[in-house]
Amino acid sequence: MTAYTATVTVRLKHGVLDPEAETTQKALKRLGFELGDLRSADRFEIDLEAADSDEAAERAGEMADRLLANPTIHDYDVAVTERE
Amino acid sequence: MTAYTATVTVRLKHGVLDPEAETTQKALKRLGFELGDLRSADRFEIDLEAADSDEAAERAGEMADRLLANPTIHDYDVAVTERE
Repeated sequence: MTAYTATVTVRLKHGVLDPEAETTQKALKRLGFELGDLRSADRFEIDLEAADSDEAAERAGEMADRLLANPTIHDYDVAVTERE
Repeated sequence: MTAYTATVTVRLKHGVLDPEAETTQKALKRLGFELGDLRSADRFEIDLEAADSDEAAERAGEMADRLLANPTIHDYDVAVTERE
């Protein structure tokens, strides 16, 4: 078995209202910053052991499907790196 | 001016308690998943115009210092990509 870190990034689907991002964007503008759109995302870095990186990615995807992401409003992507 | 997206990833500093990550880790284990440590992070994707990518990164860093990250408990990193 090899030690991996699977990074799951969970975003709201396009078109789904993002009040946190809107509030953050307005606050930054009030502070005088110039910016366009702002999108927020949650990121989970998961240390796990797996036979190979595909298995690590698959397991992280199952974790996202079961708990980390709500399929109705979220999209997610998984990136896997080997841990020293 | 060029259109960029600056991605600011805000993490809790090493050693700072992360109740959200702990709760998520326990829930995944209750669902039968095998995993080691789990760390959560907030990610902000900010569309902005800048003269070059250094200026875009600098502005995003200022946004992190002023609002997105609490210097007492957070570390952050900034990645900049050009937008089509």
